[in-house]
Amino acid sequence: MNKTALLIILNICIFLSLNQSDASEKESCFSCHRQETPSIVSAWTSSAHAMAQVNCVECHGEEYNSDHSTQHERIVVEAHVCARCHDKAARGHFAGKHGISFRAGRACTRSQMKTEENAEGCKDCHEKGAIASRQEVECSRFLAQSPEMQRRGRLMCHMVENRCDACHSSHSTDLSIARNPDICGTCHMGPDHPQYEMWESSKHGILFKQKGLKYAPACTTCHMPEGTHNVSEGITMGLAGQAYPQDVREKERDKMLEVCSKCHSKTFAAQNLSDGDAIQQQSMALVKEADKIIRELDQEGLLLPSPSDRPAHPLSGHKLEIGPQMLYEDLSRVEALFFRMKKFFYVITYKGVFHQNPDYAHWYGNAPLKLALSEIRSEAALLKELKLLRDRINNLANMDLTGANDATGSETDLLTLDLRKLKEQFLKGELSKDEYESRREALFKKYGL
Amino acid sequence: MNKTALLIILNICIFLSLNQSDASEKESCFSCHRQETPSIVSAWTSSAHAMAQVNCVECHGEEYNSDHSTQHERIVVEAHVCARCHDKAARGHFAGKHGISFRAGRACTRSQMKTEENAEGCKDCHEKGAIASRQEVECSRFLAQSPEMQRRGRLMCHMVENRCDACHSSHSTDLSIARNPDICGTCHMGPDHPQYEMWESSKHGILFKQKGLKYAPACTTCHMPEGTHNVSEGITMGLAGQAYPQDVREKERDKMLEVCSKCHSKTFAAQNLSDGDAIQQQSMALVKEADKIIRELDQEGLLLPSPSDRPAHPLSGHKLEIGPQMLYEDLSRVEALFFRMKKFFYVITYKGVFHQNPDYAHWYGNAPLKLALSEIRSEAALLKELKLLRDRINNLANMDLTGANDATGSETDLLTLDLRKLKEQFLKGELSKDEYESRREALFKKYGL
Amino acid sequence: MNKTALLIILNICIFLSLNQSDASEKESCFSCHRQETPSIVSAWTSSAHAMAQVNCVECHGEEYNSDHSTQHERIVVEAHVCARCHDKAARGHFAGKHGISFRAGRACTRSQMKTEENAEGCKDCHEKGAIASRQEVECSRFLAQSPEMQRRGRLMCHMVENRCDACHSSHSTDLSIARNPDICGTCHMGPDHPQYEMWESSKHGILFKQKGLKYAPACTTCHMPEGTHNVSEGITMGLAGQAYPQDVREKERDKMLEVCSKCHSKTFAAQNLSDGDAIQQQSMALVKEADKIIRELDQEGLLLPSPSDRPAHPLSGHKLEIGPQMLYEDLSRVEALFFRMKKFFYVITYKGVFHQNPDYAHWYGNAPLKLALSEIRSEAALLKELKLLRDRINNLANMDLTGANDATGSETDLLTLDLRKLKEQFLKGELSKDEYESRREALFKKYGL
Repeated sequence: MNKTALLIILNICIFLSLNQSDASEKESCFSCHRQETPSIVSAWTSSAHAMAQVNCVECHGEEYNSDHSTQHERIVVEAHVCARCHDKAARGHFAGKHGISFRAGRACTRSQMKTEENAEGCKDCHEKGAIASRQEVECSRFLAQSPEMQRRGRLMCHMVENRCDACHSSHSTDLSIARNPDICGTCHMGPDHPQYEMWESSKHGILFKQKGLKYAPACTTCHMPEGTHNVSEGITMGLAGQAYPQDVREKERDKMLEVCSKCHSKTFAAQNLSDGDAIQQQSMALVKEADKIIRELDQEGLLLPSPSDRPAHPLSGHKLEIGPQMLYEDLSRVEALFFRMKKFFYVITYKGVFHQNPDYAHWYGNAPLKLALSEIRSEAALLKELKLLRDRINNLANMDLTGANDATGSETDLLTLDLRKLKEQFLKGELSKDEYESRREALFKKYGL
Repeated sequence: MNKTALLIILNICIFLSLNQSDASEKESCFSCHRQETPSIVSAWTSSAHAMAQVNCVECHGEEYNSDHSTQHERIVVEAHVCARCHDKAARGHFAGKHGISFRAGRACTRSQMKTEENAEGCKDCHEKGAIASRQEVECSRFLAQSPEMQRRGRLMCHMVENRCDACHSSHSTDLSIARNPDICGTCHMGPDHPQYEMWESSKHGILFKQKGLKYAPACTTCHMPEGTHNVSEGITMGLAGQAYPQDVREKERDKMLEVCSKCHSKTFAAQNLSDGDAIQQQSMALVKEADKIIRELDQEGLLLPSPSDRPAHPLSGHKLEIGPQMLYEDLSRVEALFFRMKKFFYVITYKGVFHQNPDYAHWYGNAPLKLALSEIRSEAALLKELKLLRDRINNLANMDLTGANDATGSETDLLTLDLRKLKEQFLKGELSKDEYESRREALFKKYGL
Repeated sequence: MNKTALLIILNICIFLSLNQSDASEKESCFSCHRQETPSIVSAWTSSAHAMAQVNCVECHGEEYNSDHSTQHERIVVEAHVCARCHDKAARGHFAGKHGISFRAGRACTRSQMKTEENAEGCKDCHEKGAIASRQEVECSRFLAQSPEMQRRGRLMCHMVENRCDACHSSHSTDLSIARNPDICGTCHMGPDHPQYEMWESSKHGILFKQKGLKYAPACTTCHMPEGTHNVSEGITMGLAGQAYPQDVREKERDKMLEVCSKCHSKTFAAQNLSDGDAIQQQSMALVKEADKIIRELDQEGLLLPSPSDRPAHPLSGHKLEIGPQMLYEDLSRVEALFFRMKKFFYVITYKGVFHQNPDYAHWYGNAPLKLALSEIRSEAALLKELKLLRDRINNLANMDLTGANDATGSETDLLTLDLRKLKEQFLKGELSKDEYESRREALFKKYGL
């Protein structure tokens, strides 16, 4: 706390010396904004920024002051504006998962600006960087959305990546807002990663709500110990549970055990966390089993509809895509089940363990994970049964034709070839969907099927 | 506030002059109820009603006082009892969506009383009113329920329509109860319209919980500005997002923008709300695609089971019903998926945008909406594949029989006719289910299938 | 309250006289633990235990003090340690559902210790006790889990059965923690029994949150009236709604009505509770219909995959298991739907009514319950359609072979027998899965299918 206080005073001093704005400048903003947006003016007026004479133009820029006609809607969109003063926090943020897109500047598909502006920035996140294929540097789920849904993602869901006011409010500097676990919950909630709900209904959460921070941990206690803005400290795995190297894992685990041991014995805490590791691995094995089933179905052409009969994936086209770039649209049923397994139930299972919530680990995670795998297996059996019936009908058709015509074997081969050609023509756009279907029907009739 | 205070004083004066009850009357109720229901007596005693000498009989009626043997359970069920004093609030309530059934008096299927009592009242809601067919004036989901489940709907879910104590408590007049967003949440929650959960986990909600109304909006801030009881002000669409005429939309949107602009710039707010409009339209388009797929499957007789093989819909009988009168029971799988799309995911997607909750818009809404559409398409492909197999088997059977018997073509036609006759007899109730099935089996055997 | 105070004083006296430990003993623990686990020491120091000189060794045992090398991780795992002083609470706990495993000592599959240690204890819960088959005394869902997931269940989910610190915190004696409904919510939440969420979003819950216990009931108000630790008082049914004998039901219902009538009229309360009874029965009927459909599908061999093609159930082997020992893994799709019906939606429907939450009763319970039943019926129709197609193909194949070979009828019988033999060999482990499948293919070819 003393360090923080010193830093604040230091920053105030720097500002007081550097600050080119004066009261008259501020007044020129206020003359309108006291009427237009009174709550913004009032939040700023009682902020630490106001006390330190960090006025409107310091953040919004000089030009904001001169031409109201076009600049009215410009907002402070990038963390580096704040970073000019809040260097330590910015460096912490930059180093952790929250800063992914901050590192990429304005280049990330899911961040504020277009890829073209600073493609170099991709290198930090995507292994081969900006020279890699679109498949590696763009985010297919964003590409598949309407502009309006993209805006929800960019301005709200992924806002934290390069905007400080995602957690801190925009004009107030009241730290109680940013430290309250509820603000973490505005993103870390919902079917894909309900860390807030897990914590809130765990013993940690309910004791915090009753007795406060002295009695039980909030989000920041474990994930931002001593005020670090690197939220990835103490985390032993990457996105979706991808393993870090052994030495990094051990180093990060030790950091987390240090936090746990303020209340629990280290042995107890270590057991709990290593149970989490094991359950993450066990759950991942179920996801991989489902992944294998679906790839086999695809290779046998059994998906209904098959990727070739569906709208093209923005990056993978008419090939099956169930990896990190998987969409949640234009799928077959087994894939729809798999999406839920991988993005929802798997994640909830192991994060439920790490957040000490047995109900999430078990009933929201493990049970639906295993139910979905059962359903995928059951659906795969159905698709194989359909294939068996098709094959047997084909065999019977061959035998019938054999009676009538000795060359039948080759005739059905000809049918297969003809169907394949038609499909190719359709996929290349040489035939419309209606033309394709009517010709297909005609072929079946021609071969007496 | 001053206006409200004046109105309250005025009402008190009216009551003090009109009031025929006296302390002895009240005492005759209290003599028992102090023992029987002490919490009711104590809530009333400290209420504004008690101060204004609005005693038991004013609301519960004179007869309540005279014959305890039969009247004990009578409760104040209709808003017009309150409306005798609270005229302005009642008129506001009457004009908005909350008052649908208040307008209909006691005639609505889902309100307190039976349709027969005041069928004229339907005219306010149902275009052709009480002279229309049952399908237009009754609510099939109510008709399909047991009396006990109907009671949940009438006395709890739709209570707000003509009972003031849905939001205000019954005997206390403490306005902090009715103004707290939690009371709105008792209805506006859950899979069909989780506005409470959306708001609660949005920035609006968490700032309200931390800092109160001065800092962030609660339900009433946006939907009951200046205390109006017309909760539909500022809403630009009807039930399930049905479009209002352009001029009404614009007028209502302006009202909402007025509210937003107390904290946000109008341009920012307008962009957010028009994104909501666009996303509502985009989501509706997905619902319509699914609707079309299902109607086509039904026309081809591919639904499994088909409407004719299922228990009759209370209004539409054995016809497909996936419009506003759709049930959530006795459906085929694609319809069950469609029900969730339309009643849950579509609604959550756009309401999530309007309530500034990207997680609801995206992960609780948009993702399951698109997953369900994928599954409907996949199931439709499966049902068509089954049809193809059936047709090919029929063709093969024809060919086989042709070999053995020249009249085969007409024989399978005869089978089709025989099956159709049987089904008709069964649907008319001339055959029991067992008889129908055994005769069907016999037919298949007769035709060697 | 006076009784409680007397009991506390009595217990303190007993301890002060019996207590063999002294300040030096306590100090020997504290010398390390002030450094190692400061929060534990501080919680105890301000507890009623500290005031009554109930020191570390009283609960953790003498040996804990002597040899730190091996005893460090021993914790107080059994309620009987607390029961030595808190006799009345322990007897209450023992008598109700919370005490199931407390009665069984350490013998329950899902409690702390292994079955072998005290198998006699099963007699309290399992009718035939420890001499019954494994199927009757073990819990298959535990047997199917990894050790790490079992630990979540034993140490967290079912901890309440024989550990007092499930509700009371470990070292503090602050009763406000155990009395707060949030602590009940750490278990009574989630898809299998969301009593906490139901209460929290009901009028009871929101009024409690706003106005406190004087105004509205919390969990303990209805389920632990006058401080009883028998949480089953006033409950008229066993696990999963199993009916108690009529006289027990009536006795328990009267207890609950006594509680309700502190705020509501008894007639009103009785109507609400009997609606709950009716809706439980109606919902159970839907579950039973689904149960019947699935058993019939199994008898006809139509489940996909069938139990014989799936990993063995830990108790029932390769037989269908959809009773109390049903797993949520290795199921076919209809069974996966059934699991959700029975364990989630059925329970939510009737518990939603009893907890006065129409949204849970209806949208979280009744609607998905009926949707799932629709889907089960639809899937059953699909599986029967597949069988019909298979049978028709078989018939056609027979007819084809008849043309070529007069002995066909017996030939397909031979195929059936051959397939049956193969399957038996595979299930007995005499053939690997690959061998089984390749021989099956060969058989089909041999018979021209």
